[in-house]
Amino acid sequence: MAPMACSQAYVSILMLLLYSSSFVSGGKLLVVPMDGSHWLSMQSILNQLKKNGHEIVVVAPEINMHIKASDDVYTLKSYPVPFTQEEMDISIKEFGNDNFQELPFLVRFFRTIERMKQTNAMFLAACTHLLYNQELMSYIKESKFDALFTDPMMPCGQIVADYFGIPSVFFLRGIPCGFDFEAAQCPRPPSYVPRGMTGNSDHMTFAQRVKNMLFHLAEYFLCSFVYSPYASLASEFLQRDLSLTELLSHGSIWLMRMDFVAEYPRPLMPNIIIIGGVNCAWKKPLSQEFEAIVNSSGEHGIVVFSLGSMVSEIPMKKAMEIAEAFGTIPQTVLWRYTGETPPNLAKNTKLVKWLPQNDLLAHPKARAFITHAGSHGVYEGICNAVPMVLMPLFGDQMDNAKRMESRGAGVTLNVVDMTSKDLSDALKAVIYDKKYKENIQRLSALHLDRPIEPLDLAVHWVEFVMKHKGAPHLRPAAHDLNWIQYHSIDVIAFLLAAVLLALFISLKCCLFCCRKCCCKSGRMSKKSKSKSH
Amino acid sequence: MAPMACSQAYVSILMLLLYSSSFVSGGKLLVVPMDGSHWLSMQSILNQLKKNGHEIVVVAPEINMHIKASDDVYTLKSYPVPFTQEEMDISIKEFGNDNFQELPFLVRFFRTIERMKQTNAMFLAACTHLLYNQELMSYIKESKFDALFTDPMMPCGQIVADYFGIPSVFFLRGIPCGFDFEAAQCPRPPSYVPRGMTGNSDHMTFAQRVKNMLFHLAEYFLCSFVYSPYASLASEFLQRDLSLTELLSHGSIWLMRMDFVAEYPRPLMPNIIIIGGVNCAWKKPLSQEFEAIVNSSGEHGIVVFSLGSMVSEIPMKKAMEIAEAFGTIPQTVLWRYTGETPPNLAKNTKLVKWLPQNDLLAHPKARAFITHAGSHGVYEGICNAVPMVLMPLFGDQMDNAKRMESRGAGVTLNVVDMTSKDLSDALKAVIYDKKYKENIQRLSALHLDRPIEPLDLAVHWVEFVMKHKGAPHLRPAAHDLNWIQYHSIDVIAFLLAAVLLALFISLKCCLFCCRKCCCKSGRMSKKSKSKSH
Repeated sequence: MAPMACSQAYVSILMLLLYSSSFVSGGKLLVVPMDGSHWLSMQSILNQLKKNGHEIVVVAPEINMHIKASDDVYTLKSYPVPFTQEEMDISIKEFGNDNFQELPFLVRFFRTIERMKQTNAMFLAACTHLLYNQELMSYIKESKFDALFTDPMMPCGQIVADYFGIPSVFFLRGIPCGFDFEAAQCPRPPSYVPRGMTGNSDHMTFAQRVKNMLFHLAEYFLCSFVYSPYASLASEFLQRDLSLTELLSHGSIWLMRMDFVAEYPRPLMPNIIIIGGVNCAWKKPLSQEFEAIVNSSGEHGIVVFSLGSMVSEIPMKKAMEIAEAFGTIPQTVLWRYTGETPPNLAKNTKLVKWLPQNDLLAHPKARAFITHAGSHGVYEGICNAVPMVLMPLFGDQMDNAKRMESRGAGVTLNVVDMTSKDLSDALKAVIYDKKYKENIQRLSALHLDRPIEPLDLAVHWVEFVMKHKGAPHLRPAAHDLNWIQYHSIDVIAFLLAAVLLALFISLKCCLFCCRKCCCKSGRMSKKSKSKSH
Repeated sequence: MAPMACSQAYVSILMLLLYSSSFVSGGKLLVVPMDGSHWLSMQSILNQLKKNGHEIVVVAPEINMHIKASDDVYTLKSYPVPFTQEEMDISIKEFGNDNFQELPFLVRFFRTIERMKQTNAMFLAACTHLLYNQELMSYIKESKFDALFTDPMMPCGQIVADYFGIPSVFFLRGIPCGFDFEAAQCPRPPSYVPRGMTGNSDHMTFAQRVKNMLFHLAEYFLCSFVYSPYASLASEFLQRDLSLTELLSHGSIWLMRMDFVAEYPRPLMPNIIIIGGVNCAWKKPLSQEFEAIVNSSGEHGIVVFSLGSMVSEIPMKKAMEIAEAFGTIPQTVLWRYTGETPPNLAKNTKLVKWLPQNDLLAHPKARAFITHAGSHGVYEGICNAVPMVLMPLFGDQMDNAKRMESRGAGVTLNVVDMTSKDLSDALKAVIYDKKYKENIQRLSALHLDRPIEPLDLAVHWVEFVMKHKGAPHLRPAAHDLNWIQYHSIDVIAFLLAAVLLALFISLKCCLFCCRKCCCKSGRMSKKSKSKSH
């Protein structure tokens, strides 16, 4: 048996070496990003992955907002799309302007749907042009990537992953209408997990729970106009019928930009890793220009104002109202704004085309943050413990704002209705009423007291999927059940039927016995009667 | 406004200092441990907490198995209990012996229940003597602990925590009958989360799902005889009616000794932190005695055999069968055994009263591990990538063994039925059939590829709860709902009623309209008829 034991020992050593050394030379990662702020926060992870020695290829449409070539972090492979930069810029600008218009609810609702259809048509066209770009697809095939890293809000990346059998890691804030949790088979009881856009918290009255259930039931129809074209495209391209949730169910790891200081506690699946605040990791020293502005603000400090990467211009009337409000506070205001300068701009207000938001908020002189309540901004506010004035515009921003306000860390304003005085009052409140600062400091302390930094966690799981070719041990068996099986409806029906059958048989037996007894006693009494007669 | 801004700045600095420095001097931790192997793995966390500068007080009954005074890690406060060391030792020995007796199923079932009642009576008596020990309770009150660390399988610690309002951290393998997940409000769909003792995996046939559902429905009654006395004791002591799950629902953090390389993927709540394999962290170099035995084993290496901290003696007949099997393999066998030496013991088998299991398994010469499939042993097998022969005895051990076998990392034997040849064959299989080693190496690689060590994770969360006085931001709102509300049954009933009412009214309206029309046309036709007459 000695040779067997010997060969066994060799195999063990060989396998250990294999596991420990397979990544010394680095892996190959394909990235299919989502544009906008999603891309900006994804970059911090790519930077770290590059430092760890991996080769990164980013695939993006030629026409885009922020995805530009990189000297040293990744190779950009662009593909042509059937729209121009101008068309895209106009679309974004119009989308931004819509948020400032006073419109009746229904008009706003249908206009938003129309805009979303337009934007979605662009994304879908880009996706189609990627999938049917033979040169690029051949390149991907030949490159033999270890993993694909994508934001599934735009499900194009997963179609590519599925086509080539590459394990995928998702990086997302969320997918509207709960498609993310549905695809991950993650329970989300409507009794305490508020649905998007309801304005509900996790503690709901009966009426709010009814509203939550109605939104839950309507979710599928609400978002299908955005996502059903992707399901059709995927079915056509992969040559098998599949829904969006089926497509996304094959994601190995879901890196979700959420944290329970800002979200309500809810169940998670083992392959959902929460990395809220990952965008705070990207820190740089302030440039001389900004350092000078901040230092000149004196003891009053600064207020940072940005409506996100998509909205940098606003209608003049609104801009003037805002400028007027800024004139009433002693702080220096840094306003990210690319439109025409409002004529009433006060001396304390500096307009800038772009601002290093996280670095400014990290400065001890930051007193307040006026934000559109996008998730990145909200987490930067939390990381740096800066109280917020929240002006939600679209998407999940209403919910983000609601959560911050409910935790006493900010004041929410309706950007359409608000007056100059409302904004001035809100700013004075968050700056001078101690409770806002105390609440955001409490949230910040909870958020930052973590066993591992979200950036390291994200990088770990991307590398895990690259190394182990996925994470099948984290995939729940629920994916192999249909709706009836998952909810045990067949089992409950069977058990109920069995109980009813048993009851029925018992009842019949009892009746039969009773009848027998009665008949007997009847006959007996008849007999005795006849005898007595 | 300058003085306001100034005072604001002072408050900020003060709060930041408060958050960052409050733990420089260390916190105070009260530990109410569970005896047996549970205590052994808890100690590694206490060691680390002590190193981090915290003051630790362990409260334990005077009569116990392993909880002894410590020189430097913690202060032991013992309290008298109404049983003797001898009574406890006999109870444990009889419990161990029962596992080796050939008994019909029902006899075994009722004997197990009887034994559990006996053991439980001891734990309950100990708990009552703790709660009503005025001196000790006054000490706890005066000591003002920052947190309480306990294994809720014996829920006494949480009664103390609740009484004094101390936030608690749970450290557990699990509570039988799913009381742990129920108390944490963690969903566990019976369609793919196998219930204990069913032998089911996460992929079940219809019949297995029916069995799983029946076990799920029976769980409450199966375990109530163990836990309802604790609920009564808690209700009496805390002077308010509460169930076991209500009592445990106040645990701030659940540190669960599980990992998905050995468990089936299932939902988790944000305050459930998995730390499977935490016991592997406790490593020491081998003593000279063991080092010598291991080194003398030559190229064949060693086999480690232990049936856990509770079972160190077995009936002579079984011991002789086992000794015979060991004589058929060339490896040196290290057997933890305190009984009479079997007369047929082969030269390659060394009997020892206690063995450093994890350190022996970590040695490159470890070829196989014969274990009772207790969770600690199984995780030490996985950490060190040693294939296993599993001989489950009681509790969750059948399920642990089933999982390892289903992953091809070991062979399960029924300790009562197995012959000497069965054991010999199983040992040869796991040592010489490459697939067992490959599978356990794969599991080990997945298990060890983690962003943070389970020990650090456990220590972090204990410190988190001490520092922040709990973790209320991780407590799901589900705790504030009753069963009907949680499952939205009231909402569904209301919506169904509304739909039915709407349908009924529509139908009535339609019928009314139809009748009107018919009457009209009837009258019309009558009129026209009368006209035509």
